[in-house]
Amino acid sequence: MIEKLVCVNCGAEYSPHSADAPVVWMTCTTCGPAEGILDFHYDLDAVSESWLDSPLAKRERSHWRYAELLPLKESSLRNDWQVGWTPIIDAERLAMELGLERVLLKDEGRNPSASFKDRASSVGVAHALEVGANTIACASTGNAATSLACHSALAGIEANIFVPHTAPEPKLAQLLVFGARVFAVEGSYDQAYQLCSEACNHFGWYNRNCAINPVLVEGKKTAGLEVAEQVAAYGGVPDWVAVSIGDGCTIAGIWKGLAEMHALGVIDRLPRLLGVQAEGVAPIPYALSHGKLPEPGSGSTMADSIDVQVPRNWRKAVNALSAANGRVVCVSDEQILAAIRLSGRHGVFAEPAAAAALAGVVVAVDSRIIEPHESVLVMITGSGLKDIRSSIRAGGKPLSIKPDLASVEMAVENSS
Amino acid sequence: MIEKLVCVNCGAEYSPHSADAPVVWMTCTTCGPAEGILDFHYDLDAVSESWLDSPLAKRERSHWRYAELLPLKESSLRNDWQVGWTPIIDAERLAMELGLERVLLKDEGRNPSASFKDRASSVGVAHALEVGANTIACASTGNAATSLACHSALAGIEANIFVPHTAPEPKLAQLLVFGARVFAVEGSYDQAYQLCSEACNHFGWYNRNCAINPVLVEGKKTAGLEVAEQVAAYGGVPDWVAVSIGDGCTIAGIWKGLAEMHALGVIDRLPRLLGVQAEGVAPIPYALSHGKLPEPGSGSTMADSIDVQVPRNWRKAVNALSAANGRVVCVSDEQILAAIRLSGRHGVFAEPAAAAALAGVVVAVDSRIIEPHESVLVMITGSGLKDIRSSIRAGGKPLSIKPDLASVEMAVENSS
Ligand SMILES: [Zn+2]
Ligand SMILES: [Zn+2]
Repeated sequence: MIEKLVCVNCGAEYSPHSADAPVVWMTCTTCGPAEGILDFHYDLDAVSESWLDSPLAKRERSHWRYAELLPLKESSLRNDWQVGWTPIIDAERLAMELGLERVLLKDEGRNPSASFKDRASSVGVAHALEVGANTIACASTGNAATSLACHSALAGIEANIFVPHTAPEPKLAQLLVFGARVFAVEGSYDQAYQLCSEACNHFGWYNRNCAINPVLVEGKKTAGLEVAEQVAAYGGVPDWVAVSIGDGCTIAGIWKGLAEMHALGVIDRLPRLLGVQAEGVAPIPYALSHGKLPEPGSGSTMADSIDVQVPRNWRKAVNALSAANGRVVCVSDEQILAAIRLSGRHGVFAEPAAAAALAGVVVAVDSRIIEPHESVLVMITGSGLKDIRSSIRAGGKPLSIKPDLASVEMAVENSS
Repeated sequence: MIEKLVCVNCGAEYSPHSADAPVVWMTCTTCGPAEGILDFHYDLDAVSESWLDSPLAKRERSHWRYAELLPLKESSLRNDWQVGWTPIIDAERLAMELGLERVLLKDEGRNPSASFKDRASSVGVAHALEVGANTIACASTGNAATSLACHSALAGIEANIFVPHTAPEPKLAQLLVFGARVFAVEGSYDQAYQLCSEACNHFGWYNRNCAINPVLVEGKKTAGLEVAEQVAAYGGVPDWVAVSIGDGCTIAGIWKGLAEMHALGVIDRLPRLLGVQAEGVAPIPYALSHGKLPEPGSGSTMADSIDVQVPRNWRKAVNALSAANGRVVCVSDEQILAAIRLSGRHGVFAEPAAAAALAGVVVAVDSRIIEPHESVLVMITGSGLKDIRSSIRAGGKPLSIKPDLASVEMAVENSS
């Protein structure tokens, strides 16, 4: 139930019903592809009415339940792809340890390709099918690419993935197994990205790129929609939602979903956002106070999903943080490793970028940004299985023992 | 709604309500721990009645929905652990490729620790809590151990895992991140197994071992219960259910679930079982025709979950295969690698033992064990992320290109 598309830069409005809509949808014709990111607006009164007729509570346990808030025709919804409606783990012992009222871990690793990005890719691939594309492309070595390859395989369309030739084998394995065509570009990530855009223009491939394709953030949004519904069973809206920030699109999407649910009256208040960045890769605090990106730093982080010095969606992230009375904290790799263990000890196996969000909660509690009586929902954006090398670093060593009971006894004593 | 426990060897019956039940539950006192595996029987009339009062269709989308068919008190159910009710992927193109009526992939990688074994471990840990155990143990390097570590972390109890000191680091990483105490035993897997049993006896730890603990197979059974319910949406009971066989407990559990649903009238016919083993590690065909295990062979397979020369539950597996008019086929590592790709191209990323089941379907179709007009459900028992080294072998190489459009064009042409 789309009302219009609005340019986040100049405010120009576009109708999704115009004849050239699929093309227009990409970016604002005035502002161009670098700045003119579009944003979907919905007719919320019509959505409300539709939900009265067909209550959410009775729908599919997947993100397709939010049909009216997705940029897809009803016939394009793919209920057969089980995306979203991921479980929330109420980590009571963890809340006690941190001295908080409540800590909820939303386990996005339970999505089809084990990350949050499945939300965006599934909506993107469904949209590609709707507009008649049979080939889709992106430049990424991470979860975005994997989720695209997975959903392209489900859809039976071709996925073209551009990666720098230095991309590590384990990252490529999934893409290749899902049957994607993977181009290892002899050049940097930026060159791979550039080449992907050119190829999309040249071949007419559908571009799965959050920075220019507004359809994808609508998929990410569903995490915020879900949180709004699901927290009713966990004491209501938490005081904070914590999420790590890479290119800025994820936190913006989650906020958009929460805000829509607030406007629709599903929740009566909004949480604050805790954005988490890695030390040394933290342009967002600067952007938040200066209204522009800083000069790119030279630091890096083990959490590759948020190892982004020049976030293409920094403006959306900053807007979300401002609207949400949000805060940003930074965490070290050591703190991320500790958070991988912390999350694991409460039953959720997190990849570094996901654990970073929890690490940020720990930092925010220590610095009294989050107060003792407050509650937090942490977005665990991907499974620890995605990055087993980091898991090995986090996990440490087993207890070496001889094969006898006495050795077991001694080891138990020493490790208790 | 347990009626009794029956020894699978001598037929002796035990009441679960006797004072010493938790101890008795482990194995038959006459036959001993090696042969006297017990099996739960339920009062199916009572179950039926209970389901009339509270229909399955309205229950939790998790395996806890089968409360009446689990060996747990109602207060021991853990609806907060989202196990089971995994999605079925209707792989239409794959069915066409194989010339079958229908191919359904049940994606067990969507469980909390990304494998089928979460079903058993979750029920085991819930049972441990019910009987007041605060420590649980197993000997394994695989999915059983991981799922135990995961659910112990969720429950806040201690998990002790015994592994041979040669176990590869990636396998240990998850266990350690979940906070398990991992004993790397200077000895073989059999020594680690033996030491685990001794330690359970000595320390009074709860033993998560499918060969002696009958509670665990009840967890595995839920996959069969689910299949019976879920296939209603996919053309009804398939002609075949394909699953790979390691220690024999998984196929036996699935069959038990299907048989109970048949007895309860939820399904009006039973599928046949297609058991799949690896070439060189295939004791079950011999056991099926001779009623005993062969001398252990010396072969091995890349699919470590089914790399079992002496299956401890061979008798249960053979019984299930006989009852199901089942067949067993064997597959090579090359066929497993091809099946990893095949599954991936239809959107499901499978670990080798899971892909083996699909490889078996391909073999069975080629040899007309499965006929062209038939339908198959394949148990994809674990995620390909579990064994990234095999995924790399399966995936192959990306296309190396220079960073220009002409190179993309050429690569597309050559790879089409
Ligand atoms: Zn504009
Ligand atoms: Zn007996």
